[in-house]
Amino acid sequence: MKTVKIGLLGLGNIGTGTYKTLEMNKAQIEAAAGCKIEITKILERDTTRERDITVSPEQFTQDPDSIFKDPEIDIVIELLGGIEPASTFIQTALENGKHVVTANKAAVAANFDKLTKAAKDNGVEFRFEASVGGGIPILNAITTVLQANQFEEILGILNGTTNYILTQMTEYGLPYEDVLKKAQELGFAEADPTADVEGIDVANKLSILMALAFNKFVAPEDIPTEGITKITKDDIAAAAERGCKIKLIAEAKIVDGDVKYSVKPMELPVSHPLAGINNEFNAVFVKGNAVDELMFYGKGAGPLPTGSAVMGDVLEIAKLCGGNK
Amino acid sequence: MKTVKIGLLGLGNIGTGTYKTLEMNKAQIEAAAGCKIEITKILERDTTRERDITVSPEQFTQDPDSIFKDPEIDIVIELLGGIEPASTFIQTALENGKHVVTANKAAVAANFDKLTKAAKDNGVEFRFEASVGGGIPILNAITTVLQANQFEEILGILNGTTNYILTQMTEYGLPYEDVLKKAQELGFAEADPTADVEGIDVANKLSILMALAFNKFVAPEDIPTEGITKITKDDIAAAAERGCKIKLIAEAKIVDGDVKYSVKPMELPVSHPLAGINNEFNAVFVKGNAVDELMFYGKGAGPLPTGSAVMGDVLEIAKLCGGNK
Repeated sequence: MKTVKIGLLGLGNIGTGTYKTLEMNKAQIEAAAGCKIEITKILERDTTRERDITVSPEQFTQDPDSIFKDPEIDIVIELLGGIEPASTFIQTALENGKHVVTANKAAVAANFDKLTKAAKDNGVEFRFEASVGGGIPILNAITTVLQANQFEEILGILNGTTNYILTQMTEYGLPYEDVLKKAQELGFAEADPTADVEGIDVANKLSILMALAFNKFVAPEDIPTEGITKITKDDIAAAAERGCKIKLIAEAKIVDGDVKYSVKPMELPVSHPLAGINNEFNAVFVKGNAVDELMFYGKGAGPLPTGSAVMGDVLEIAKLCGGNK
Repeated sequence: MKTVKIGLLGLGNIGTGTYKTLEMNKAQIEAAAGCKIEITKILERDTTRERDITVSPEQFTQDPDSIFKDPEIDIVIELLGGIEPASTFIQTALENGKHVVTANKAAVAANFDKLTKAAKDNGVEFRFEASVGGGIPILNAITTVLQANQFEEILGILNGTTNYILTQMTEYGLPYEDVLKKAQELGFAEADPTADVEGIDVANKLSILMALAFNKFVAPEDIPTEGITKITKDDIAAAAERGCKIKLIAEAKIVDGDVKYSVKPMELPVSHPLAGINNEFNAVFVKGNAVDELMFYGKGAGPLPTGSAVMGDVLEIAKLCGGNK
């Protein structure tokens, strides 16, 4: 039985969750793939941090080329986050004939055309299910089972931090600043929350969703984007009086034959499927001209939900390069 | 550009919806598949019925062998419904080297092992996304993106007729018999509603879900199954007093290392994601040991939603046999 070998870039929270997903479900994953799967090298500076997984010291490397140039490595998993050096690493891996899996929405959205072209030119797979909606299998659905639809509308709650803040403001009538502070204490918001609360993270995800669903790439900075920092508890109370909830919504829809798109706080009637998605949960609502309305709901972040999506992509590639396909 | 040719068995409601899905989205489907796709022969007795699609008389045949033995046909779509002759037709098509796509839960659940083995032995694809949850892409999610999980629990609302009846009983305090009659008038329930209201349709779907998620096939008749015919408006009122709604639930979960399964009416707290799924909508709630909680929601029946799933399967096969893979 062939062994598919993996080089992992980054062993932070998501890297550790991915490693752990493989560790705890290894027998099942290998049976499904039809081959053995091993993470043989890990690019990570912090080799001594306490982690809830079994890593041997000789797996660590400080030299990315020792992964890209290793003829034994089939798949590179990129979990460094941020646009650079992640994008350059992905590009280099693809050019060296490695399949690449990533959860990095910033890198994918910033270089969508370039990276998908590099994958095609080098005859390798480039998969990024975990980059939108974490564990929710929305990208694969759009590019396989739902592909016989013309999509009419996609609405998403795609950021757990902002959805947590809006939910707490709604449920307890609290002002934005108080809830943000609580979210930071609980680890639901980062010390610098800008990318989340200003909608930048959501714009990255909408850019990727649109590229796949509408075959139209729009750079994240070209998506009209408004965050939640100006939402007051009075806004939320006024929406409630109209029978609505305020959610930070990524929207792309066909209007007069063109795709219109935005990221902004929107009032949704409480009867709308997305109005009931609370706290750190994410959801994507899709309308297709054959399937009609669909909604996907789940954990949009976190080490194991993200690890689930990353390893799902790895498993599909492993089937192609040594296993069951 | 290669043309992938299809033989269609059955041009009733679902067959017409599938044909229409291909007709209305043909350019997009063919671009995604990387090949042309044509339904060249249709097995159907009723050749004169008014249908909202363009079919030429010479596409019809009364002889299934003219499809199974046609060397030009790559894919057979089976949409006759019922266990026989559908199962025998699927088997024959597979043995003649045809890929098969079906929406027929009764046939798939009755002959799961035999048909999946025939597909494997003959090196062809056998896909049945539309058989569970209609347009909801749950089977593909379980067998691809979520495959790195050990599933702990699956709960489904998998029958639109019974969910419509329970929703109307709940919202208007009406007795079962009155709502069933209304559902029959509206076309949401069949003249003989037995398979729906006694849970048989749901047991077929749970059998298929379990085979894929837990790698354990249980024949539908071996699944403890209770329908909704004994639910009174008093039961529903009593549940409401406890903060619950009654839903017909297909359940499979791991208890002490074994899969436990049943189809029966269950009380769900109104806060449960499935409690808010109303009328003809279906939903599947999945818990995996990495991804945690996920829910998929959409139209579980109807010509176009079902056609969406059937054509999604066809498209994936077309990629393999002439197109983009």
